Amino acid sequence: MRPVGHVRSPYTDAAAIPKGPGAQHDAEGVLEVLPEFAAGLTDIEGFSHLYVLWVFDRAGAAELVGTPPTDERPHGVFASRSPRRPNPIGLTVVRLLRREGDRLHVSGVDMLDGTPILDIKPYLSSVPDAELRRGWLDEAEARRHTE
Amino acid sequence: MRPVGHVRSPYTDAAAIPKGPGAQHDAEGVLEVLPEFAAGLTDIEGFSHLYVLWVFDRAGAAELVGTPPTDERPHGVFASRSPRRPNPIGLTVVRLLRREGDRLHVSGVDMLDGTPILDIKPYLSSVPDAELRRGWLDEAEARRHTE
Repeated sequence: MRPVGHVRSPYTDAAAIPKGPGAQHDAEGVLEVLPEFAAGLTDIEGFSHLYVLWVFDRAGAAELVGTPPTDERPHGVFASRSPRRPNPIGLTVVRLLRREGDRLHVSGVDMLDGTPILDIKPYLSSVPDAELRRGWLDEAEARRHTE
Repeated sequence: MRPVGHVRSPYTDAAAIPKGPGAQHDAEGVLEVLPEFAAGLTDIEGFSHLYVLWVFDRAGAAELVGTPPTDERPHGVFASRSPRRPNPIGLTVVRLLRREGDRLHVSGVDMLDGTPILDIKPYLSSVPDAELRRGWLDEAEARRHTE
């Protein structure tokens, strides 16, 4: 695994990144793809949304069960977006605003500035909202609203 | 990077996996999580859909621009789901049917049997269909329908 580029983001401190179900991720940033991989961006302009796979390069050691900032109860790492994962890979859906050569201007970044990018993929389809269940996240949200 | 588990899938030949925009991905399979990572599955039952990050362990060398099976024109690897990626990571959204200990029964698998799993994450939200643009994929589909 090697970076194919890096994220330029307004965030330099993880504490400043909005978290949780109600968090608005509208921060703008740039995906800077390394020149040797720029040919891989051919035709990317046609897609409105992209998946970005990236490295949690400043996270602590893996923690299989932990308490996320959005709840006071512990949950499994595979049932959460915790950065402390066995393989520290992050996944973010961004909106592609425009391309300038090997720089993709996007909104929706929730990575720290300088984060290494492993892969970019087109976002092709969504799960209908009516089919989505969000487990403990919905329960934690409901508890907050009734407290 | 190390596997946290493996996919049990009906597919042993990549040619048998449905591809392209109209492909139905309803094949059932099992995500077998290694015992040492099973604690990370705590509370995963509450989620209807999961992201699976996995390794294209039987793909050819990376190809920055290539012609996918769904089109006769070449496209950049970051604008396609080609397995021949600089970092050979696959991403699949599956529906969680049920959990049996460290085995997750899912539908929607498009991986080969034995594929190493790098990570599992809850699927939390979707991009509204009305906001999605799918670039050359929609164009290729439209061309096929008018030919």
